Amino acid sequence: MNVHFSLEKQDGSARAGTLHTQHGSVATPMFMPVGTAATVKSLTPEELVGMGAGIILANAYHLYLRPGHTLIEELGGLHRFMGWKGAILTDSGGFQVMSLSELRKVTKDGVEFSSHIDGSKHFISPEVSMAVQRALGSDIVMAFDECVKHPATREEVKRSLELTTEWEKRSRAVELKPHQGLFGILQGGMYPDLRREHFQMLQDIPFEGWAIGGLSVGEPPELMYEILDSTAPLLPQQKVRYLMGVGTPQDLIEGVARGIDIFDCVMPTRNARNGTLFTSQGKLHIKNARYLRDPAPLDENCGCYTCRNFSRSYLRHLFQAGEILGARLNTIHNLHFYLDLMRQARQAIQEQRFSAFRRGFLGAYGLAPEENLG
Amino acid sequence: MNVHFSLEKQDGSARAGTLHTQHGSVATPMFMPVGTAATVKSLTPEELVGMGAGIILANAYHLYLRPGHTLIEELGGLHRFMGWKGAILTDSGGFQVMSLSELRKVTKDGVEFSSHIDGSKHFISPEVSMAVQRALGSDIVMAFDECVKHPATREEVKRSLELTTEWEKRSRAVELKPHQGLFGILQGGMYPDLRREHFQMLQDIPFEGWAIGGLSVGEPPELMYEILDSTAPLLPQQKVRYLMGVGTPQDLIEGVARGIDIFDCVMPTRNARNGTLFTSQGKLHIKNARYLRDPAPLDENCGCYTCRNFSRSYLRHLFQAGEILGARLNTIHNLHFYLDLMRQARQAIQEQRFSAFRRGFLGAYGLAPEENLG
Repeated sequence: MNVHFSLEKQDGSARAGTLHTQHGSVATPMFMPVGTAATVKSLTPEELVGMGAGIILANAYHLYLRPGHTLIEELGGLHRFMGWKGAILTDSGGFQVMSLSELRKVTKDGVEFSSHIDGSKHFISPEVSMAVQRALGSDIVMAFDECVKHPATREEVKRSLELTTEWEKRSRAVELKPHQGLFGILQGGMYPDLRREHFQMLQDIPFEGWAIGGLSVGEPPELMYEILDSTAPLLPQQKVRYLMGVGTPQDLIEGVARGIDIFDCVMPTRNARNGTLFTSQGKLHIKNARYLRDPAPLDENCGCYTCRNFSRSYLRHLFQAGEILGARLNTIHNLHFYLDLMRQARQAIQEQRFSAFRRGFLGAYGLAPEENLG
Repeated sequence: MNVHFSLEKQDGSARAGTLHTQHGSVATPMFMPVGTAATVKSLTPEELVGMGAGIILANAYHLYLRPGHTLIEELGGLHRFMGWKGAILTDSGGFQVMSLSELRKVTKDGVEFSSHIDGSKHFISPEVSMAVQRALGSDIVMAFDECVKHPATREEVKRSLELTTEWEKRSRAVELKPHQGLFGILQGGMYPDLRREHFQMLQDIPFEGWAIGGLSVGEPPELMYEILDSTAPLLPQQKVRYLMGVGTPQDLIEGVARGIDIFDCVMPTRNARNGTLFTSQGKLHIKNARYLRDPAPLDENCGCYTCRNFSRSYLRHLFQAGEILGARLNTIHNLHFYLDLMRQARQAIQEQRFSAFRRGFLGAYGLAPEENLG
């Protein structure tokens, strides 16, 4: 009953498949809502199920610091703790240690760091990360890697690949729970040949899935797509492919076009709380005065709970008044938009019309000037 | 189809009845969740319906300032604006003008004040308050009264009663929408004879219901109960009786015991967001370290969504992490507790065992030391 993937259909490089876990099977391409602190911000598990989310991401770093992975294990594991019956992927904590914590000291063993919450000192290594993710009981465990800052020189990236490869091997050597699968992470920065080289270093490790890390770190979208062009084809056809921390709706479609199966990003949830909504016609900033008396839903083409029940005028009011319900309704809409986009992409792949779908979506979405929503 | 009340059963002074409005009938005794800014903070209309709320309160003062009552009328009225199909009671704005705004100047005509949001100058009078509530389209409109600060001398209260009576008459003189009923407000501070005198001044005004105002303003509970003892019996038997801005679970039970039918208070919703939960055994402060690893629900005797699905440990984690879902789950629990308390009181009245119910509840609730929850 371990994590595995069935590739069902291809349309060019785009893929439709199913990712199987002990906590349910997930149709791909799929977007994973981010539940950093054991909650997808503002939503209940039932609401996530209602919009078709089958897998979410949770952050090992945050949960290790608060409330603690041993506490969560004691309470029956992360699924039970947060009342989520679907699948969970946990990241390894490596990225957060680099981006959030202070006073880092990286050695071959691991990373010493200070908590961003209270400054307390901690040490994380491949073995610690595996122990944390094992205790959490997520379905998919991510290998512990080093995340290099962007931009990085060729030499910096090259040096980091040695350490990352070593850490990923040590990650695999740790015994996980029987239901848990481990994904490897391909690094190599913005250097296609180093990406290739890193895959060669990792390819004999028997991972249940593969992730591409170190993208969407500040580079222009075109560069990311270029790296994907040369990197995605390296990965084994029969394993699921995960593009970490990506991205905009356009990024997802371009990722799918290049053979990516699963994605995660804080963008739909964070933007929702900041009042930026995704629609089939482009982005909409709800605080804009033009929506003050607008009785229309956020998106006429959307069937989400928010669009079926509330006007832009009401959503603008909730945002201006700082009301929690506004954050909720916006989050429901944005996540529904992301999940629905992946459902549409999947159907287009199954019907062998993905490239027309991709052109149509990007035309309506990318070319429509922001806020010119009629 | 105007607002009216049917008194169905009495048990001592406690009453069971039904309050009829164009937006549904509400079994009493009943608690009205507070939806200040056209939202019961953090909840959807469906969640309110799900916990049995049939009527909510909204604040004319807040909605007048933001987003504006004319905007709400243009968008189809408050029910449609916020997606709430049940009944709505609006307060008159008088209390908020006194408690929230700055630079007030009270004349016979009305009150000049500055917005607490942006300092802009405004004027409110009985006629303005009626126009605002008419535009909002609430089912129950409250007369515009003067709220005297507590404590107030006998002379201050007496002088205020003249003005309040005049303002309530002017409120009644304004034509409302056909579905709207107007409630009068009995003032008189902590002086039983002034309460009686005020009722004599108002009694010929044909209000659809009666409210008792100016209580729960800082006086000890025993004094409030004493005032209720002498005030509630003054009010017409066949009209609904509303105790404004009250209160704790104990206050509700003591109010019902004295013949009150409906209540409103921010306490369950505000306390929820601050992590204070009401249970059948007393209050519980979720941030308390004792709940860190507690797998039990908030209240073993509670059937709410929160208690059916989540542990104290998880709720404590959400609270500590400042997560929106914590505010939601706590709000669901506290409102369910209040609404369920009123359902239990109603059933006890119908079965002529209210005084045993009251003793039982207060014994379990009031006598259990806080936090001594096993």
